[in-house]
Amino acid sequence: MPHGLHDAITDVPGVRVGHRTLVRGTDIRTGVTTIVPDPLPTPAKPLRCNAFVGNGHGKAVGLSQVQELGELETPIVLTNTLSTFLAADALLDWMLQRTDATSLNPVVAECNDGWLSDIRARAVSAADVRAALDGATDGPVERGSVGAGTGMRALGFKAGIGTASRLVGAHTVGVLVLANFTGRLRLGGREVAPADEVVPEGNSCIVVVATDLPVDARQLRRLAARGVYAMARVGAEFRHGSGDYAIAFTTSHETPMDDRALDDTFVAVLDATEAALLDALWSVPTTRGVEGHVAHGLRETLADRGEAR
Amino acid sequence: MPHGLHDAITDVPGVRVGHRTLVRGTDIRTGVTTIVPDPLPTPAKPLRCNAFVGNGHGKAVGLSQVQELGELETPIVLTNTLSTFLAADALLDWMLQRTDATSLNPVVAECNDGWLSDIRARAVSAADVRAALDGATDGPVERGSVGAGTGMRALGFKAGIGTASRLVGAHTVGVLVLANFTGRLRLGGREVAPADEVVPEGNSCIVVVATDLPVDARQLRRLAARGVYAMARVGAEFRHGSGDYAIAFTTSHETPMDDRALDDTFVAVLDATEAALLDALWSVPTTRGVEGHVAHGLRETLADRGEAR
Amino acid sequence: MPHGLHDAITDVPGVRVGHRTLVRGTDIRTGVTTIVPDPLPTPAKPLRCNAFVGNGHGKAVGLSQVQELGELETPIVLTNTLSTFLAADALLDWMLQRTDATSLNPVVAECNDGWLSDIRARAVSAADVRAALDGATDGPVERGSVGAGTGMRALGFKAGIGTASRLVGAHTVGVLVLANFTGRLRLGGREVAPADEVVPEGNSCIVVVATDLPVDARQLRRLAARGVYAMARVGAEFRHGSGDYAIAFTTSHETPMDDRALDDTFVAVLDATEAALLDALWSVPTTRGVEGHVAHGLRETLADRGEAR
Amino acid sequence: MPHGLHDAITDVPGVRVGHRTLVRGTDIRTGVTTIVPDPLPTPAKPLRCNAFVGNGHGKAVGLSQVQELGELETPIVLTNTLSTFLAADALLDWMLQRTDATSLNPVVAECNDGWLSDIRARAVSAADVRAALDGATDGPVERGSVGAGTGMRALGFKAGIGTASRLVGAHTVGVLVLANFTGRLRLGGREVAPADEVVPEGNSCIVVVATDLPVDARQLRRLAARGVYAMARVGAEFRHGSGDYAIAFTTSHETPMDDRALDDTFVAVLDATEAALLDALWSVPTTRGVEGHVAHGLRETLADRGEAR
Repeated sequence: MPHGLHDAITDVPGVRVGHRTLVRGTDIRTGVTTIVPDPLPTPAKPLRCNAFVGNGHGKAVGLSQVQELGELETPIVLTNTLSTFLAADALLDWMLQRTDATSLNPVVAECNDGWLSDIRARAVSAADVRAALDGATDGPVERGSVGAGTGMRALGFKAGIGTASRLVGAHTVGVLVLANFTGRLRLGGREVAPADEVVPEGNSCIVVVATDLPVDARQLRRLAARGVYAMARVGAEFRHGSGDYAIAFTTSHETPMDDRALDDTFVAVLDATEAALLDALWSVPTTRGVEGHVAHGLRETLADRGEAR
Repeated sequence: MPHGLHDAITDVPGVRVGHRTLVRGTDIRTGVTTIVPDPLPTPAKPLRCNAFVGNGHGKAVGLSQVQELGELETPIVLTNTLSTFLAADALLDWMLQRTDATSLNPVVAECNDGWLSDIRARAVSAADVRAALDGATDGPVERGSVGAGTGMRALGFKAGIGTASRLVGAHTVGVLVLANFTGRLRLGGREVAPADEVVPEGNSCIVVVATDLPVDARQLRRLAARGVYAMARVGAEFRHGSGDYAIAFTTSHETPMDDRALDDTFVAVLDATEAALLDALWSVPTTRGVEGHVAHGLRETLADRGEAR
Repeated sequence: MPHGLHDAITDVPGVRVGHRTLVRGTDIRTGVTTIVPDPLPTPAKPLRCNAFVGNGHGKAVGLSQVQELGELETPIVLTNTLSTFLAADALLDWMLQRTDATSLNPVVAECNDGWLSDIRARAVSAADVRAALDGATDGPVERGSVGAGTGMRALGFKAGIGTASRLVGAHTVGVLVLANFTGRLRLGGREVAPADEVVPEGNSCIVVVATDLPVDARQLRRLAARGVYAMARVGAEFRHGSGDYAIAFTTSHETPMDDRALDDTFVAVLDATEAALLDALWSVPTTRGVEGHVAHGLRETLADRGEAR
Repeated sequence: MPHGLHDAITDVPGVRVGHRTLVRGTDIRTGVTTIVPDPLPTPAKPLRCNAFVGNGHGKAVGLSQVQELGELETPIVLTNTLSTFLAADALLDWMLQRTDATSLNPVVAECNDGWLSDIRARAVSAADVRAALDGATDGPVERGSVGAGTGMRALGFKAGIGTASRLVGAHTVGVLVLANFTGRLRLGGREVAPADEVVPEGNSCIVVVATDLPVDARQLRRLAARGVYAMARVGAEFRHGSGDYAIAFTTSHETPMDDRALDDTFVAVLDATEAALLDALWSVPTTRGVEGHVAHGLRETLADRGEAR
């Protein structure tokens, strides 16, 4: 299946991404990533949305309303575990300036970057969240150790933000992941030994699926599920401590397509998520953080092993 | 079924309740209510817990982890809709001072008091949340227009916090509700016409069930469901805009009882929830708030109608 | 809210009901009830449908596909617990004669009439199921001890099939219940002591909601939930052994209405279900069955008590 | 991770498997497979059990009670789609001869073998189901085109029954799959082109997980989820028409282990399911069925391509 222009979630028309990266001294490696639909969804003009919880050991905010109403009424914000609620509050505040609503359902998801970053310092501020919202753009998306991905690691290597897209006829499926999960990497059919045997607490993965296909909320849950299932392709172990969530939305308000026509879309979600997960690891350099912890870059490690491809 | 000493959720040994009430000028009628187990649950020493979403038009925080792991690792905080995430962040902060955890799942639920209070002013502060946590006590529980209930209304009348308990053998089932939902009140078998026909947006109900019965997380979901079902007894209409959630936890760590022995417990949850819902309305005086909005007290209204019982 | 012409589920245009009643000697009191949409739904031309499991201690067949796809592709059949699978097989066979499908999802639900009927005799035959399907008609619906309701009891009295409808603008909400559940009857605001204290195993309730409103599958789940919640209005205790399920479908294929406009529909489901549940008890005579067991008629009991209204 | 003696679900002590294979003329390629715990679970002595629905386009019977109560009270029967309900009725009948229960929850799951077998002929009889139940044995398990797997195909090749086990300390995780799903086979890191591009309707997969680990029903749902996730490892596409279900049970009645200790078990489920899925394809010969349809054997195809390993 072909990918879109940037092989990124921003290939879906009207989907923008913003990052706010926080790297301070040796101890802070964290940040915020935003997925901002344009035009902005609001309670009065929501987008169709749904979520799938693969392993609910996470703090994702906003899901019960998303699942009941099938609606997204704010951008989606990703950050570290202990900044989730501050980020939700900041997103709420940002939205209150843009709507006169008296009820709002911010959607925020998280992974735990406590291996590389002093997570208890709670370094993310409301201003950081606003900056990531205000700075969202279409076009190419920065990947790897950026935004919410700054301090993440997955499958034994440094990881972070990854993204990819697939074209389904005249429409696009885009995926952005925040990768921080445990497992044995499967890359091009080989199992790749991890650079180390560290298994940090709070490994997790967030998969955001965007599309402009005419699908309804029930169908979006089916798409979201495939986002979680695709994690298995790259070697995820869905550990106890892993908060594995997928959130899927469409920018379309058209009459939903028939479920019988969804197969290509399902394949697109699986392929784009797999590609996004590998993208989150591929080009990320070795990173040093709090307490001298190191997360090794995949390409560097393969090169050291003489296995670079 | 007999009730406990205080006919309150605090009749469950080790369950405390705190309120922080905010009444300022004509516009602010809001607050915070906390349910604080003693000893304090933490990620290392959680309580068994589960949740049931009756109508997911709400912003409750923490539920996906509660449902996956069946664990409560913080107190439960109730407040107004637009203070939910600030309250979650404050609860998180309060917990970080009491544990060295690097991952925490605060549980917060909300109703919308925007009819009587200027909800967009976001009057609740982190200090208010801390005060409601620090001030939690066992013994009698203040009810009605107090804490998170300060600005709530339900079934056409002023409402707020209600609580009740039922004894099941040597054990106790306690319920605390935050009542803010729409419907036609059924009281002692009669339908009671509302004091007015106002149907504010964002009507909702939160039911917290506590017990010391030896039940596991799966069984606690069954208890929580009965907490939502009991709303129908008093006339709830489960409107589109209603965020109707129940959260149930036990202080017991014992081997779970057999499901076949749960019938009395189910009846206790239904009866205690019904009593708590009526309690949330019964003794609450007529209250005036933002924009001159009035919520009429039930007893006053019945007295005016010559129907007081 | 006004009801339709027959105050029955058949007030929804294109909804027919069939009964096959089996009363043999002293031991068999059972049967089959069918809800048959016209035109007949098939895998190629399904109706929108969803289900809500209130208490999943039951054997309902077909629900996981109904929930995944939001589709009903056969009539709905109700019968006794131990005839569920024979009935599903007979429904499948009946459908195979009417379509060339190679995959079919029959929907069958059940309650346990073992108090009045020798349920282990498995008296229902495939021919009985076919008769109930072939005999389905629109117009007035027979209620009480008929079809699947023949051997049922609820709230301490003889019960069975009940039905009611409510008009929502130009549309209709119709409900048919199979009532067999435990609790303390609430009738016109009074609690009515049961005729006896028998609590048979396997008490349950099935609520079928039909409408011609333009709602989608996600919204139909919301309707179905209200069907279960309404059971609390009449005194249901949602016991451990109760299989409480609601199935909701629409005959409409139109663009779904906005959720914000669903409130009247929710009230219609609550009111029609409450009315149908009382209808299932009201006019049913005292019935004697297997092992000399008796289920007392509500009106007769009230008359004996001098409380007839 | 090491596997058990037979690398089969029967490595879990007290788990037996039975097959009834139906091959008649050119048109019938179907059958029944049973997983029979010993001692036999009954309503009075159930095993802990739960289920996970990966893609609910299937007719699995018994899941809502399994999910509500966390209990398995019969063996598990696998067969073809249109024999599901006859098989459930036969299983029920078989159980009624072994218990005096008046309520029973048979668990049956299915895939659609209509590509190779005349599924509308409904060739499976109650006697076939009984034979598969009565003939269940421990020890080595026949795999491939046997029992319910006789007419199945997956990932472009002939498939059927597969099984595997993994040892977790002193305990065993065993998996048996009925493989009939669509996708692009991933084998040892390579994508293997299918033998043909046939995509039959009603592709599906059933994963049965058995263990003797002390886990409760909530935890068994977590195990079952990994059974579905593992499908992605071998290339499943989770198509619209795929009924992908996992059912997990334990023979243990001991106090549940801590969730924090489940990681090895999760890996065992993932690895055993992957192995069982490949096992379901590996040794199966090319098979010809109804309408001259052919499903090609994987090993034969690889040999023809000169790729045999």
